[in-house]
Amino acid sequence: MHALVYAGPGVKEWTEVPDPSLSADTDAIVRVDAVTLCGTDLHILTGDVPTVTPGRILGHEAVGTVLATGSAVQSVTAGDRVLVSCITSCGTCHYCRLQRYGQCLGGGGWVLGNTVDGTQAEVVRVPFADRSTHLAPTGVSDEHLLMLADILPTAYEVGVLNGRLQTGGVIAIVGAGPIGLATVLAARLISPSLVVAIDTDPGRLQLAKAFGADVVIDNGHEDALDVVRGLSDGLGADVAVEAVGVEATFTLATTLVRPGGTVANVGVHGAPATLHLEQLWSRDITLTTGLVDTSSTAMLMTLMKAGVLDASRFITHRFDLGDMLEAYDVFGDARASHALKVVLTRS
Amino acid sequence: MHALVYAGPGVKEWTEVPDPSLSADTDAIVRVDAVTLCGTDLHILTGDVPTVTPGRILGHEAVGTVLATGSAVQSVTAGDRVLVSCITSCGTCHYCRLQRYGQCLGGGGWVLGNTVDGTQAEVVRVPFADRSTHLAPTGVSDEHLLMLADILPTAYEVGVLNGRLQTGGVIAIVGAGPIGLATVLAARLISPSLVVAIDTDPGRLQLAKAFGADVVIDNGHEDALDVVRGLSDGLGADVAVEAVGVEATFTLATTLVRPGGTVANVGVHGAPATLHLEQLWSRDITLTTGLVDTSSTAMLMTLMKAGVLDASRFITHRFDLGDMLEAYDVFGDARASHALKVVLTRS
Amino acid sequence: MHALVYAGPGVKEWTEVPDPSLSADTDAIVRVDAVTLCGTDLHILTGDVPTVTPGRILGHEAVGTVLATGSAVQSVTAGDRVLVSCITSCGTCHYCRLQRYGQCLGGGGWVLGNTVDGTQAEVVRVPFADRSTHLAPTGVSDEHLLMLADILPTAYEVGVLNGRLQTGGVIAIVGAGPIGLATVLAARLISPSLVVAIDTDPGRLQLAKAFGADVVIDNGHEDALDVVRGLSDGLGADVAVEAVGVEATFTLATTLVRPGGTVANVGVHGAPATLHLEQLWSRDITLTTGLVDTSSTAMLMTLMKAGVLDASRFITHRFDLGDMLEAYDVFGDARASHALKVVLTRS
Amino acid sequence: MHALVYAGPGVKEWTEVPDPSLSADTDAIVRVDAVTLCGTDLHILTGDVPTVTPGRILGHEAVGTVLATGSAVQSVTAGDRVLVSCITSCGTCHYCRLQRYGQCLGGGGWVLGNTVDGTQAEVVRVPFADRSTHLAPTGVSDEHLLMLADILPTAYEVGVLNGRLQTGGVIAIVGAGPIGLATVLAARLISPSLVVAIDTDPGRLQLAKAFGADVVIDNGHEDALDVVRGLSDGLGADVAVEAVGVEATFTLATTLVRPGGTVANVGVHGAPATLHLEQLWSRDITLTTGLVDTSSTAMLMTLMKAGVLDASRFITHRFDLGDMLEAYDVFGDARASHALKVVLTRS
Repeated sequence: MHALVYAGPGVKEWTEVPDPSLSADTDAIVRVDAVTLCGTDLHILTGDVPTVTPGRILGHEAVGTVLATGSAVQSVTAGDRVLVSCITSCGTCHYCRLQRYGQCLGGGGWVLGNTVDGTQAEVVRVPFADRSTHLAPTGVSDEHLLMLADILPTAYEVGVLNGRLQTGGVIAIVGAGPIGLATVLAARLISPSLVVAIDTDPGRLQLAKAFGADVVIDNGHEDALDVVRGLSDGLGADVAVEAVGVEATFTLATTLVRPGGTVANVGVHGAPATLHLEQLWSRDITLTTGLVDTSSTAMLMTLMKAGVLDASRFITHRFDLGDMLEAYDVFGDARASHALKVVLTRS
Repeated sequence: MHALVYAGPGVKEWTEVPDPSLSADTDAIVRVDAVTLCGTDLHILTGDVPTVTPGRILGHEAVGTVLATGSAVQSVTAGDRVLVSCITSCGTCHYCRLQRYGQCLGGGGWVLGNTVDGTQAEVVRVPFADRSTHLAPTGVSDEHLLMLADILPTAYEVGVLNGRLQTGGVIAIVGAGPIGLATVLAARLISPSLVVAIDTDPGRLQLAKAFGADVVIDNGHEDALDVVRGLSDGLGADVAVEAVGVEATFTLATTLVRPGGTVANVGVHGAPATLHLEQLWSRDITLTTGLVDTSSTAMLMTLMKAGVLDASRFITHRFDLGDMLEAYDVFGDARASHALKVVLTRS
Repeated sequence: MHALVYAGPGVKEWTEVPDPSLSADTDAIVRVDAVTLCGTDLHILTGDVPTVTPGRILGHEAVGTVLATGSAVQSVTAGDRVLVSCITSCGTCHYCRLQRYGQCLGGGGWVLGNTVDGTQAEVVRVPFADRSTHLAPTGVSDEHLLMLADILPTAYEVGVLNGRLQTGGVIAIVGAGPIGLATVLAARLISPSLVVAIDTDPGRLQLAKAFGADVVIDNGHEDALDVVRGLSDGLGADVAVEAVGVEATFTLATTLVRPGGTVANVGVHGAPATLHLEQLWSRDITLTTGLVDTSSTAMLMTLMKAGVLDASRFITHRFDLGDMLEAYDVFGDARASHALKVVLTRS
Repeated sequence: MHALVYAGPGVKEWTEVPDPSLSADTDAIVRVDAVTLCGTDLHILTGDVPTVTPGRILGHEAVGTVLATGSAVQSVTAGDRVLVSCITSCGTCHYCRLQRYGQCLGGGGWVLGNTVDGTQAEVVRVPFADRSTHLAPTGVSDEHLLMLADILPTAYEVGVLNGRLQTGGVIAIVGAGPIGLATVLAARLISPSLVVAIDTDPGRLQLAKAFGADVVIDNGHEDALDVVRGLSDGLGADVAVEAVGVEATFTLATTLVRPGGTVANVGVHGAPATLHLEQLWSRDITLTTGLVDTSSTAMLMTLMKAGVLDASRFITHRFDLGDMLEAYDVFGDARASHALKVVLTRS
């Protein structure tokens, strides 16, 4: 089969590799029908993720068809159409029992496209298939379903739930890239009174409005703190979400939040940040970090099927699976291409 | 009457001042029967707390006898023996409704000995008396009760509750000064499986054992991270409490905590700290800060009366109220005097 | 002034009475600009509520203008347009500190139109004005605001919050009268995957659809349990709300709920009900009862102002305040009049 | 091997049966080293539990040694000393993901000694071994560990956690049999301010004191409601636990609880009970039912190892495994024998 193989920093190939096969009782083999690319894949390609070694097939999101299952797999069987989640789970360890699958100690967590071969391929071996795949509901398209593999659970769990957003609350989201926009969408599920999106790219701010932000702030030209406080009785946001991954946006998030509020970090950080404890120590701030657990995936799938959660706005570009390298080019140059999520499908 | 008056950085006087009088319907005038000193008072005297201006009577903890009450005060009356809490509360604002009295927007919060005259005096005016005083139960001594004015609610709320300590959990407390020791005591109420106290002073570590720590670590000579991980299946503590207020101990706390755990900052910080987001972003860490709300004071008083919470170990030195300056000397030189809490009583 | 006076079971009068005046420092005197009737008022008139004695002015919901305030009132002042909440609160007692204002031990709770004179009058005295009135926001009409005095907080707190409805959950509401319909509206704020409304009146079921129910069941003709289980993988609803107040509907609610789910009782019951513990003991059911606390009123007002919560569908009939008796006739004969909420306004 | 076989209502035999063998990849075969009897076994023998059919080996609690494991079992291996929990769990279904293992839809839940052969035997087959056994810690005896198979998790989860007992709270436990006494012990972990035990048997009330009750009430001779209210400012208990399983004790529990409190039903009920909704509807009561999930077993085991949880008081009688019938006689006649828990061990 063909797959996208990481060949060291800066180098990737769409190349012929052996087909995967069952290696544990709990595995499934899944034919990839639709797959997408993630900002994390770009990080890997720069060499920033040391757990990914050359030769690895990338990709941790897919919708596909089960080809075969190990003897211990109970919930899916050959022929089933499934969502392949970015997180797998042993189901038995301390963290899996707490639904913190992202921290699995038993061989799960984020492994696909990281420590085992991933989904940017014609076929993928999925470990712990019972807890890594979800039967696809009828009436939801592959490409919409694909948004449940990573981006929507991440936004909901690491942004909205970690942020403890309450009905009627004020949420400020710093960064209007794909994950920031997904946070706008996920936040609306809780009926906040105000969703503010902050970015320096006017195009993305326009998108944020379309995704459901009430107010957008171009913090290249406006003082976000002034605007947010002006909209919240001078107090600040109940929840500030960091959705970029650099120190400046993190610091902004910590100033936007009101006493008693929460800063939910969603961004992937490559460097430390200064935390102004001399200001924050007495302000009753909660600050959270997190990897997605995909504990919400089944629920979000129900909402998508019910028509309550609409993922269509994410998909900006579509490719054949074989055009993987072109898809990377388009996704990697989002400023120019205005790509949010690109979807590659089996032809 | 006499009172301890702040006269600018480094200068304090035990001097004659006018008696306080009722200035609002919601005030009470309270004769001070027992009062204590707090580490915060020492911070004020160094000039670190800009809200405290020269001429201010210090002190935010007392047990006393009500002399008079304003017309709107309902819960206490002249002659009542009361605990004066470090936090007052308007009872009506957004934060008071949420029991976040420390963040009161209506004139409450930490005001005594800060923005209004405090308790290190023969008599004190207590604003919002209904929500700033608690009727003293019979059978609990003044000096034990006094530990409920600040230190025990702070340890319980900002350390244990913010830290989300669960029954059976592992808690590591960095710093075994008065507030760290109070956190040991408060943590035991939840029945953790392991309480670890960390300090560089062997004397304080010995005290930590007496207060209920299972394991103590002298991190001048031992690697606290190694020890804590060795005691917790290699994972780290469920809850790490920072009870010092400097960067090194804060950083230590963030490394001691396991994935999914909480770092509860109790220390008062005068400077920022580096937050290693490049390590923490994916570890599901919750980090909290907070000023005490004293929302737990009534409950802790019930436990003290029931004999479940024993505050006797805190009190190392006793003085007459008139020996205020000597009490400050002893409390301010805790390394030499081994003082934890000093109590001054009306003779 | 004129007021609606209860004169014993079955007897009410719209009659001349003395104007109210301030009797405590914490009172406000409010001119009634808009007032509504509640099912509870009908209960009172049948003699079912023994705390209401003859001579009492009824009514516990209003929007009005402050005429005067006692000396201790801080949050409103003469001229302010306010919502008068059905629940008052001393702000100091055990329950008020927990935001359980409905259980206030200090003279609050449901007192208006019950133990003190109420809002169905030209002017009303509001006790504990700081915690019983809410400043009206601009841009929200009196009649919409009026729905925040009782029915919407009741549905949200006693139905949705007590029911612990989660995003993506299935909620079944037994009874599609005003409070059941309000529960449909309030449930939608949390983005459930399925809202089912159950009643025997086809007209009300049609209204339930308009309010946002996904599925309606006429349980005079359909087996509600079959339908609900058929829509929920055979498990039943996550949350079943009893919104009628009789044994049959209560029993239905307890059968509709899945293992691990919650039955939230909103209905006012005049008789006991059989609880099938022999079936329920092992099913992990939570059953809640409750009086509204109005702890959510300020938040719901924010959502109404933001356009997220639309109360317009409730108001079916409008009257001049002087037509109080006619309004009672229309409201009391809802089967014929199809009345949900009637609004009376000062002309 | 020998086993205790249910042969229809009223009939049981200690008899020769075939040894069990692995039948699924996820099974373990465990040699029984220590086993106990449960009140539920007595219920089964009266014919009250229709899921138990003649020929079934009873018993759902054991400590033993693993003899063999299926190929998919990861967490235990032959030779391991393990606790066999009363609840098994598929680990994949909706309920298992929520840690509600007692409600497992995938073949788990309470199956041992119910729908599959149980632990009152020399050897037992344990389904879903990864999630039904727990590695035994060193330093804890078999008989203490055995108390973690059912009674202690039941008391903690269904009594204390469902009851939402808070630190400083007042808990009243109706019934001082084994499960009521276990609830006393479990409640103490949270540091309530008052634990009240209620029974009609003075011997059991004396035991309740030894287990940690602050106050005991003989409700054959005292009015429990009067006493409890007298101890709680007239309000009643925060938490009332029903630990008997009949209507009278259930009704008592619902009267003992204060507004805003919780009634946690632990008792196994064979008949319905009247619920006084006409009194309870407005009192903000939460009522819970539940089967144990054993989600707390690992945590309680940690506390037992740490010396915080002492199970020694439960064990009143000890037998050889071969004296099973005699053990049943003693356990079945607890009034005369004063048996709480009997332990049978392999000789």
